[in-house]
Amino acid sequence: MISYQEMSKEQLLAEQENLKNAYQEFQKKGLTLNMSRGKPSADQLNLSMSMLDILKKDDILIDESGTDTRNYGLLDGIPEAKRLFSQVLNVKPEEIIIGGNSSLNMMYDTVSRAMFFGFVDSEKPWKDYSNIKFLCPVPGYDRHFAICELFGIDMIPIPMTSTGPDMDLVEKYVAEDETVKGIWCVPIYSNPQGITYSDETVRRFACMKTAAKDFRIFWDNAYNVHHLTDTPDTLLDLFQECKKIGTEDRVLMFASTSKISFPGAGIASFAASVRNLEYIKKQMSIQTIGFDKIKQLRHVKFFQNLAGIEAHMQKHRAILQPKFDVVLEALDRELAPLKIANWNKPNGGYFISLDTLDGCAKRVISLCKEAGVEMTPAGATYPYGKDPHDSNIRIAPTYPPVEELKQAVELFCICVKLASVEKLLK
Amino acid sequence: MISYQEMSKEQLLAEQENLKNAYQEFQKKGLTLNMSRGKPSADQLNLSMSMLDILKKDDILIDESGTDTRNYGLLDGIPEAKRLFSQVLNVKPEEIIIGGNSSLNMMYDTVSRAMFFGFVDSEKPWKDYSNIKFLCPVPGYDRHFAICELFGIDMIPIPMTSTGPDMDLVEKYVAEDETVKGIWCVPIYSNPQGITYSDETVRRFACMKTAAKDFRIFWDNAYNVHHLTDTPDTLLDLFQECKKIGTEDRVLMFASTSKISFPGAGIASFAASVRNLEYIKKQMSIQTIGFDKIKQLRHVKFFQNLAGIEAHMQKHRAILQPKFDVVLEALDRELAPLKIANWNKPNGGYFISLDTLDGCAKRVISLCKEAGVEMTPAGATYPYGKDPHDSNIRIAPTYPPVEELKQAVELFCICVKLASVEKLLK
Repeated sequence: MISYQEMSKEQLLAEQENLKNAYQEFQKKGLTLNMSRGKPSADQLNLSMSMLDILKKDDILIDESGTDTRNYGLLDGIPEAKRLFSQVLNVKPEEIIIGGNSSLNMMYDTVSRAMFFGFVDSEKPWKDYSNIKFLCPVPGYDRHFAICELFGIDMIPIPMTSTGPDMDLVEKYVAEDETVKGIWCVPIYSNPQGITYSDETVRRFACMKTAAKDFRIFWDNAYNVHHLTDTPDTLLDLFQECKKIGTEDRVLMFASTSKISFPGAGIASFAASVRNLEYIKKQMSIQTIGFDKIKQLRHVKFFQNLAGIEAHMQKHRAILQPKFDVVLEALDRELAPLKIANWNKPNGGYFISLDTLDGCAKRVISLCKEAGVEMTPAGATYPYGKDPHDSNIRIAPTYPPVEELKQAVELFCICVKLASVEKLLK
Repeated sequence: MISYQEMSKEQLLAEQENLKNAYQEFQKKGLTLNMSRGKPSADQLNLSMSMLDILKKDDILIDESGTDTRNYGLLDGIPEAKRLFSQVLNVKPEEIIIGGNSSLNMMYDTVSRAMFFGFVDSEKPWKDYSNIKFLCPVPGYDRHFAICELFGIDMIPIPMTSTGPDMDLVEKYVAEDETVKGIWCVPIYSNPQGITYSDETVRRFACMKTAAKDFRIFWDNAYNVHHLTDTPDTLLDLFQECKKIGTEDRVLMFASTSKISFPGAGIASFAASVRNLEYIKKQMSIQTIGFDKIKQLRHVKFFQNLAGIEAHMQKHRAILQPKFDVVLEALDRELAPLKIANWNKPNGGYFISLDTLDGCAKRVISLCKEAGVEMTPAGATYPYGKDPHDSNIRIAPTYPPVEELKQAVELFCICVKLASVEKLLK
């Protein structure tokens, strides 16, 4: 097989004809498939069903502190939940807050509070600057970018490399501009590329000089126990690296059980230095009396400890790995020889990131949609939805059953080919 | 028995001696009792225990819209929960959002969003005024006031009357000053007085002219199904009154099951006009993907419908009414003849509000504390914690068991008498 770049115009036209026919065959099937969001499948949700009635109507629901978990109180969570999730994030129990059902909500609230009240080391609330900026490694997570956009925080795209964000650029921006206040990071199995930051990248985050006294790294550990292989990536511990040199106040870590137990009915956690948390808890105590402690107890009883979570994640892996294999095998078989796309083979996380030829991503997504396969909108992985190369596509293989996924990715490959041929014929 | 006001100095000194002895007897008992917060008792929490395992590990958890409640989605709640709580608040299902575990959190978020983004009819975000103001009926709920204080919103105290806030004053402020942006109301069984707003008060809220286009009434229905007698108060429906004349955008209604099922593990709701909600949901969709739908399903299965909630509230009443009786009987017996205090006899809610002679409240609370009985801090029912008369005390009789409550209120009466005698001897 020769690559599209090597084909003559006649060969491309013939290929286009074949692809159109194949595409039309798919359209006739009337598919409605979805590879758009990082949602667990029903099989994965079934793994946690015994959590539903793990607490019985005759149980005593007193926590280790002697608090009745059914009543008001304990803003930052029950001790046993703080212990469990402090293991997940490798922090001390006093360095963690157990929140509601959504780490996204905790990140939003953290930005919202910073806008209004600043952080413990802020000279003034962030809203009192004429404008502030966040560094946004790209491609990245659309919901992070949406928070910045809502609050009018300017976003500066930072290209991702195979070892994490381009740290030369990061260091330059944070050193020169005190209105650069934060950066969004998914440091292990990044969304969407599945890249894990190298030790050097993490150390540079810990050491870098920041013009802003109150610069913050939003360290979104969305996938830190979400491995897909026997040789998982490992991430150097940023918080511990920072502690060695006294920069730990710059780190805010988030995690949740949304992709461990139930999305929406899981629990979120937020870890940071005691100095950060003491300041934030004063404001949080005005927002709420506390989160759902019964759900916290449910999770602790179900998982017991970090080993329990890790064993549970192996069951997720058994469901997810074949799905990633289906997609990667199809991409290797259908697209690799044609040299029209590049993609990653992640060791964990929820996504495969694919780059088409420049200017083809929107067309691919649109072709998929018209044949009944919903993909993440093109551009979603960039601030303001604007991918300057119109090339990045996020593939989310977790939700559909394997048989549906096979069809969806087969169609997807046809669409990538079609869009590429169109582009080369222009 | 003669009143303290009629006593001679000698009689007061003799009374003081007796009271000191009685007080010291109490101190020797080493009590640790708490009448400080509106918390349900363990007996009340036991009423909802079967909710814990009402969903079983083999259940299908698909809601009426076909959504898997275990997965992401449905920002504003599952249809059956919206239907149930739309009955509680007498709105249409499309006029309600089912939130997380805390109506306080929904109120905080609503103020926070208004500060940053304004409402649908705002000329600009509230933060862009040099200062804005909220009307605060007093005595009122400390957590409402704390939200204003955190966001730097000036608070204007409005005296409560037996029919609700002083509406002459309310109308004057909202008509004259466009920076008066909101008012906090607990319209039925108000916190702390247990007052229910009269029909005329409600109608005046619906009709009043406001200088601000985006004035909002925060209508906190904390106790709208929390009756204590066979002849409960009834509240005219503000939202429906407003709809008659087209002012419904000014109403924001909040409720939760914190004092119906479990505080912290209940569900909160927020109702308003579709125009308000559409605007707010756009911002909410950046904050979270959705709240805990499994918990929503649990509540719906447990309560079924409004009649189910009302029947459940009768069980709460059976536990609470005797506690209110214990306190009211003691106050009648010990304090009424002495003419040193006034208090309410509420038909519902969670509190009894008592006014001492001017300048005595702090002293009473301090005396109680030194004898082992924790009360709500004096001043808490006023903005900035400042009761200009130092006279209002909020009594929360719900949490302690009856036997403890009897002791606590006996001590309380001694403390009120002691502080009054001290005051009269000055």
